[in-house]
Amino acid sequence: MSVTAPLGFRAAGVAAGLKDGGQRDLALIVNDGPSRAAAGVFTRNRVKAAPVLWSEQVLRAGRVHAVVLNSGGANACTGSDGFQDTHQTAEKAADVLGDSAAEIAVCSTGLIGERLPMDRLLPGVAAAAGELSRDGGLAAADAIRTTDTVAKIAFRRAAGGYTVGGMAKGAGMLAPALATMLCVITTDAEAEPETLDRVLRHATGLTFDRLDTDGCMSTNDTVLLLASGATGVRADEAELTAAVTDVCADLARQLLIDAEGATKAIAIEVVGAANDHDAVVAGRAVARSNLLKCAIHGEDPNWGRVLSAVGTTEAVFEPDRLNVAINGVWVCRNGSFGDDRSKVDMRPRDVTITVDLSAGTHSATIHTTDLTADYVHENSAYSS
Amino acid sequence: MSVTAPLGFRAAGVAAGLKDGGQRDLALIVNDGPSRAAAGVFTRNRVKAAPVLWSEQVLRAGRVHAVVLNSGGANACTGSDGFQDTHQTAEKAADVLGDSAAEIAVCSTGLIGERLPMDRLLPGVAAAAGELSRDGGLAAADAIRTTDTVAKIAFRRAAGGYTVGGMAKGAGMLAPALATMLCVITTDAEAEPETLDRVLRHATGLTFDRLDTDGCMSTNDTVLLLASGATGVRADEAELTAAVTDVCADLARQLLIDAEGATKAIAIEVVGAANDHDAVVAGRAVARSNLLKCAIHGEDPNWGRVLSAVGTTEAVFEPDRLNVAINGVWVCRNGSFGDDRSKVDMRPRDVTITVDLSAGTHSATIHTTDLTADYVHENSAYSS
Repeated sequence: MSVTAPLGFRAAGVAAGLKDGGQRDLALIVNDGPSRAAAGVFTRNRVKAAPVLWSEQVLRAGRVHAVVLNSGGANACTGSDGFQDTHQTAEKAADVLGDSAAEIAVCSTGLIGERLPMDRLLPGVAAAAGELSRDGGLAAADAIRTTDTVAKIAFRRAAGGYTVGGMAKGAGMLAPALATMLCVITTDAEAEPETLDRVLRHATGLTFDRLDTDGCMSTNDTVLLLASGATGVRADEAELTAAVTDVCADLARQLLIDAEGATKAIAIEVVGAANDHDAVVAGRAVARSNLLKCAIHGEDPNWGRVLSAVGTTEAVFEPDRLNVAINGVWVCRNGSFGDDRSKVDMRPRDVTITVDLSAGTHSATIHTTDLTADYVHENSAYSS
Repeated sequence: MSVTAPLGFRAAGVAAGLKDGGQRDLALIVNDGPSRAAAGVFTRNRVKAAPVLWSEQVLRAGRVHAVVLNSGGANACTGSDGFQDTHQTAEKAADVLGDSAAEIAVCSTGLIGERLPMDRLLPGVAAAAGELSRDGGLAAADAIRTTDTVAKIAFRRAAGGYTVGGMAKGAGMLAPALATMLCVITTDAEAEPETLDRVLRHATGLTFDRLDTDGCMSTNDTVLLLASGATGVRADEAELTAAVTDVCADLARQLLIDAEGATKAIAIEVVGAANDHDAVVAGRAVARSNLLKCAIHGEDPNWGRVLSAVGTTEAVFEPDRLNVAINGVWVCRNGSFGDDRSKVDMRPRDVTITVDLSAGTHSATIHTTDLTADYVHENSAYSS
């Protein structure tokens, strides 16, 4: 399970003292090869944390030997000193692994704007190196949790004879409180960095990129894909893409269910779009409507709030040809009221909102959650 | 006070039975001239309510004799039948005023997706016509309230010898629950429709357009400016612009303070922008961050959430040159931590967040509120 399900990977999760209370807060994942091929996708936020700036450089060469991840501090908005801290973290990992820092990726999550306690973090890296094992995947997943109530792990065995494993943290595309989603995917298939890059962009485009719990974009989001090639199996790209997408979808679903304060998992299916872009844009607009998210929390099938969100976009549609179904009941037809809204059963945790733009044949599904008083509470009490 | 402060206007507010409980729910404002020059700005939502589609047509000719406004129903997403209802409302007002419907504007606010009860609304129009008076401005302002806890009215006397009055409803640029801001401004100055149009666009651009309580855009937003010319004073455009902007700013402030569930009035001042557009875009991104709005609710001067919101925009800036002050304390300097955040007094209701993009000399202020459990409660319980 987790990142150590595939051959060629060891991992550890230790308590370095970055978080109060003695929980695990530092993870180390090592790729023992023979291959070190890797790819990464990072936040599109222009305010990027130091570990994002560092790991983007590392990934440019397409090779990763190890990943150091910490919770208890995002190391974002910490200036050049913060960047030095990340560099030093990579150097420390390189030291204990007998390698160069150029192939060590670093990920951090926690509060923005505070330096990391390097006097505790660096010994933590050494301690993690001492505990590396083939069974360490769960401990590593546990160490990157922030407000996550559970560790998120997944794996798939591909028919081609290799495995894809993964771990993630965060309560949405961006964890509402800690503003970060981190994810590491591993495989023991053999693949070139360029292939891994295509595979990862496809997989994240259909999964994590379509998860939007609160519309905020993190400074630290990082998703890495590492291939050890330990099985000696050369992956068929389509099969690897399917397996990695599957693992990402599994982890994305876990993030969604664990989103802070959420009581509903909402799927916004946009159909009848002129193109994929329109479908995603319309779905995202609906997913970002606080009004709609409050209504769903109140089990109110308020389709007017769906239409008013779609109406803010440039997607191709005619207002009087929009149709909306909530949990299968077409409550809005041709831009006006349709079937009786009292027929909608809003009690299940899963709510599906189908928006038919009547403008083509393309579709996309965006996942979000309801907006609750608990979300407000968690995020207003966070750093105090 | 209100829309009847200027000469040449009569108004009334009556209970037509659109709302339960016998509150006022229908307003009529009549311009007795001699001029009927008028201008309007409307929601940019592509899903427009029937009264918006109607009133946009009316305003194209630049003349308005009367405005019928109702709460208790938005008449949005009601198809061609809904448009007929609006048309019939205008015809009824024209009838009782002995005029043509072509110069009758109509505004509605309330739940989307339901037909208005025309059997009560039309007699209400007749009743309102019977109660029209020079003192009716406050009753009219009262009749358009939805979740507004108070009627919102304002007026200014211009040095040029004329008056500008106004009324508004809504709890933000878009009332969170009822998704509508309605506003009527009147003046007894004399001005061409083209002048009024420029004046109104300038005034709303600097006031209502910079108010953003929940990022949602209404299907019904309407702001009208009517000039009776009853003083015979030909308005100097600059002076009229200043007076109308003043009245709009006053009303916008009242909307902000009354926003649903809000406990804080947050001003986001963006300075050092390369141009006005960048300043507005950056300010709006901050105003729409649920995470930041929760933090302010918790009296947490969380500048990291300000930076991560600014980082999602295309505004010109370098991340390591961003500065942020909260209530006057520069907690972020050069993209990193600055003065001690414990120095920030977060207790006052008014919170000012200053964002210095260090990229130029332009500035803009966006107004928003905090995100609270009460907001969630009001908007999850609304139509149930």
